[in-house]
Amino acid sequence: MLGLVAFAASGALAAVWARLDLFGVVILGLTTALGGGIIRDVLLGIHPPATLRTWPYLAVAAGTALLVFIFHPQVAKLRRAVLLADALGLGVFATAGTSTALHAGAPVYTACLIGMTTGIGGGALRDLLLREIPLVLRKEIYAVAALAGAILVGAGHLARLPAGPVTAVAAAVTVGIRMLALWRKWNAPVAKGPF
Amino acid sequence: MLGLVAFAASGALAAVWARLDLFGVVILGLTTALGGGIIRDVLLGIHPPATLRTWPYLAVAAGTALLVFIFHPQVAKLRRAVLLADALGLGVFATAGTSTALHAGAPVYTACLIGMTTGIGGGALRDLLLREIPLVLRKEIYAVAALAGAILVGAGHLARLPAGPVTAVAAAVTVGIRMLALWRKWNAPVAKGPF
Amino acid sequence: MLGLVAFAASGALAAVWARLDLFGVVILGLTTALGGGIIRDVLLGIHPPATLRTWPYLAVAAGTALLVFIFHPQVAKLRRAVLLADALGLGVFATAGTSTALHAGAPVYTACLIGMTTGIGGGALRDLLLREIPLVLRKEIYAVAALAGAILVGAGHLARLPAGPVTAVAAAVTVGIRMLALWRKWNAPVAKGPF
Repeated sequence: MLGLVAFAASGALAAVWARLDLFGVVILGLTTALGGGIIRDVLLGIHPPATLRTWPYLAVAAGTALLVFIFHPQVAKLRRAVLLADALGLGVFATAGTSTALHAGAPVYTACLIGMTTGIGGGALRDLLLREIPLVLRKEIYAVAALAGAILVGAGHLARLPAGPVTAVAAAVTVGIRMLALWRKWNAPVAKGPF
Repeated sequence: MLGLVAFAASGALAAVWARLDLFGVVILGLTTALGGGIIRDVLLGIHPPATLRTWPYLAVAAGTALLVFIFHPQVAKLRRAVLLADALGLGVFATAGTSTALHAGAPVYTACLIGMTTGIGGGALRDLLLREIPLVLRKEIYAVAALAGAILVGAGHLARLPAGPVTAVAAAVTVGIRMLALWRKWNAPVAKGPF
Repeated sequence: MLGLVAFAASGALAAVWARLDLFGVVILGLTTALGGGIIRDVLLGIHPPATLRTWPYLAVAAGTALLVFIFHPQVAKLRRAVLLADALGLGVFATAGTSTALHAGAPVYTACLIGMTTGIGGGALRDLLLREIPLVLRKEIYAVAALAGAILVGAGHLARLPAGPVTAVAAAVTVGIRMLALWRKWNAPVAKGPF
């Protein structure tokens, strides 16, 4: 739920900065918060997507976007808190997405890819709608952190470990990698020229 | 059908202005006209999407795009007629999309969201492919009009009113809100600075 | 498989030129190589998409992207070979996509549209993620070549010809049209002004 709030806030904040109107801010908040789960369910054939069928999700995401619309200067000052919450969301979504895909019968490596997509999909949709090259493809260790958590869940599944604790540990690893990358300013390498 | 023509024309006109070639104009016309319905069917698990299985839809949308390719200066002069037809399309698609989702067994609030998406999805895809921030997120009362019609259909369903008349009234409300917004230049509020 | 390599290389090369990091290059290579098949399976209701369930596809596409990341100056010099491989990929994906859609029970014209989308979808996703107007909509005979191959497969199905040889001939026709268009610098017409 914290991840949902963080993702909704990041979408709404980006929308406010792009000068979208109130409705655009709410739609972009919803898309960022629910987009990863919608992509996951479309890939797995879960109809209609669970995130669209669970009204508390919708209410929390829309309410968050509304609050950001009003209090955006204050939210922008909480930059560190927003980044931490975003990392939490990434961890929870990537690992829960992997579990859902495993339950739906997907092979382990497919489930890991779908889990990573669940984690990074909402942010990618946000950037796409705002006409940006998705941040996740450009900067810092973001998708890698999501993939690491997803792979841990997949490995736990193969080793027949209990799903609950494994998912919790995997989510913590994702959050840890992501926060370390932010703190130490880790970046993945860029190709060397000439171009 | 009028809505289909209007959506195809709006996509094709935008493609002509972006200097796409003949085939790009036809594909963008098809995408704008059929995109909302395709997104709806993918979310609801209707395979393959009904809009791709109904050849008169394809023929009308492709024919419209072709005519716009040839007569685009004349079509551009019919600005008011195009806007009215676009509003009709928005009303028909949003309310029919909500009905389809209710028939497929979606909860009422899910059906309203999917109906709104059916109405605005084609235009959002058009803008995305042309590298624009979707107009629907930026200007005027557009998505709100679609949502209002969708909510009326959902309310009629809850009140067990007959679906036909309710859908017609709801579509008219969407068209009315949209035309009023255009005529009075209503805009949704934008967040206040500092940014 | 050659088409897969070509599509992965084209996505990875574009990502290197857009200065994405290593992970962005791999993700964009995967998206370009697998995107058309994913869109096809989402439209047909094949869950999870076959391209995500077949690990050799994933390994080859990711490995290609990795090699391009390291050797991109050399790959860029092989421009003709890359264009030929890309045309091969277009032919194989468009015709195989049409066959898959026919097997899934889609009407012939629907199958042709889905086949064309399978051929051009990966490249369109690549351009979208890199914030370009999809090349396929702007330049040269590309989608037309894919559609021609798809229509041949559909015609062969209607005439009850054996699927294997028909698909091979259709793929060759797509490759031929595409290479001729490149060689002779064919372009589809653009609408005449005034704009």
